[in-house]
Amino acid sequence: MARLVSVSDPADPRLADYVRLRDVNLRKSLEAEHGLFVAEGEKVIRRAAGAGHPARSFLMARRWAGPLADVLDATDAPVYVADDATLEAVAGFQVHRGALASMERLPLPAVDDVVADARRIVVCEDIVDHTNIGAIFRCAAALGVDAAVLAPRCADPLYRRSVKVSMGAVFALPYARMADWHGGLAALRGHGFQLLALTPAADAVPLDDVAPAERRALLLGAEGDGLSSRWLREADAAVRIPMGETALARGVDSLNVVAAAAIACYALTRD
Amino acid sequence: MARLVSVSDPADPRLADYVRLRDVNLRKSLEAEHGLFVAEGEKVIRRAAGAGHPARSFLMARRWAGPLADVLDATDAPVYVADDATLEAVAGFQVHRGALASMERLPLPAVDDVVADARRIVVCEDIVDHTNIGAIFRCAAALGVDAAVLAPRCADPLYRRSVKVSMGAVFALPYARMADWHGGLAALRGHGFQLLALTPAADAVPLDDVAPAERRALLLGAEGDGLSSRWLREADAAVRIPMGETALARGVDSLNVVAAAAIACYALTRD
Ligand SMILES: C[S@@+](CC[C@H](N)C(=O)[O-])C[C@H]1O[C@@H](n2cnc3c(N)ncnc32)[C@H](O)[C@@H]1O
Ligand SMILES: C[S@@+](CC[C@H](N)C(=O)[O-])C[C@H]1O[C@@H](n2cnc3c(N)ncnc32)[C@H](O)[C@@H]1O
Repeated sequence: MARLVSVSDPADPRLADYVRLRDVNLRKSLEAEHGLFVAEGEKVIRRAAGAGHPARSFLMARRWAGPLADVLDATDAPVYVADDATLEAVAGFQVHRGALASMERLPLPAVDDVVADARRIVVCEDIVDHTNIGAIFRCAAALGVDAAVLAPRCADPLYRRSVKVSMGAVFALPYARMADWHGGLAALRGHGFQLLALTPAADAVPLDDVAPAERRALLLGAEGDGLSSRWLREADAAVRIPMGETALARGVDSLNVVAAAAIACYALTRD
Repeated sequence: MARLVSVSDPADPRLADYVRLRDVNLRKSLEAEHGLFVAEGEKVIRRAAGAGHPARSFLMARRWAGPLADVLDATDAPVYVADDATLEAVAGFQVHRGALASMERLPLPAVDDVVADARRIVVCEDIVDHTNIGAIFRCAAALGVDAAVLAPRCADPLYRRSVKVSMGAVFALPYARMADWHGGLAALRGHGFQLLALTPAADAVPLDDVAPAERRALLLGAEGDGLSSRWLREADAAVRIPMGETALARGVDSLNVVAAAAIACYALTRD
């Protein structure tokens, strides 16, 4: 049986892993320092545990101890139970899903290992938005992509918000982070990937006209700036998703990167 | 010249339009009661004004009065200037974009009018998430969709967060709200639309096999429940976006509705 420990003081040092979950800067340094991440809600906690992440501790409303009993019983990690007000005081927001777990990160595989057997990969350059990273993982996992590769400055897929938006796909889609932005694409080319730079630029090749390829990498850029000129230059082709004739008249000059990823994954991972 | 009025008291009644912008329930009733919405950031304020929404007032850091001078000069609405701390105290969060405008809503057109000349429309059923609604508008506006129709319970496209995520597309894509969920689809069928219910269900028709049609409506459902059984039944066809063979093994049973909308709009609005 899991060891349930009642807590009521938001300043209790045993709850330090869970403080101010919406304070991105604080969380970045705290999670990096301790090698932890926070899973929120029964589903995500189950998936994180199922993916082999050891739990450091749990913090939940008592009503969740029952539904999560099998997960709690499988570890020695302490289970802190608190009322909703205490939960909110620690986390800094109303924890609708009622259950949090502090989990250990695992060492990320190397890029070479993650892509070794992959045919279709997405490569994200400097996408700093956690929601976008989470949503791209969900899309990629749904649409038959084999792995994701992240540039050094991309947002953390294990940040609470990314995990949540991904619906746990961050635990299912293998991924790695480039050590080096500069030489990152050359390394992928070395594995024989056709490198396709997704961009709304008018002179890019329309999606339907992309040459067939055995191995294919879809390069995605960030909301404001899009892909760097370096990556655009190094890619085998710049590829655009044709937008409607009325788009520009409507003041819309690009798709959100998640929408672009969805269309590109759908169109370019099925052959 | 615009009339700049310095303010420093967050409780100043002249700032009542801008209070607690993240408090969804408060904002819903406040905005409905006064027929207003809040535009955030220079770009969005410009687009809202350009779309013909009269301004009630503006609230901004002084540095934004210059860049927005042409917009401010074109109205008699008062321009309140405040320091960042006052802005934050009123709005309830750090207003990164530095400028807010309270704008008048305009009467929405009737569904019949919005779809009269449309060939391709999206129809959202009970999508209560503001981020999703905003992102669907951006997608639809980018991908050649002519109009959007919202079920009565859908989130408000003019809620601050929807507007922001849509990048202003809510001002460019014509839309209307059904008065009646029950008879809503019959009315659209009356206009000759092929009604396609988007669903991940295994027995739905794959996207590529949809019959050609002169007028087409894409029905989209909400995150948890998807489309209602009534709408699924009334549609001409249930249509699925084929997911990868590995999706289920990865615990992914559906796409996010924005990703689904992007793929469906891309595939079904080009013929
Ligand atoms: C919001 S866009 C960036 C816009 C930026 N101004 C640009 O020109 O790239 C974010 C990313 O989504 C992808 N994207 C957006 N619209 C696209 C389109 N129509 N075709 C291909 N990729 C697109 C690209 O990878 C882009 O880097
Ligand atoms: C997250 S899904 C809802 C999942 C829900 N469990 C269901 O079975 O419909 C939200 C909406 O996105 C659309 N959607 C998601 N995945 C889809 C797919 N593979 N094919 C077609 N539509 C999909 C549908 O309109 C759905 O109502």
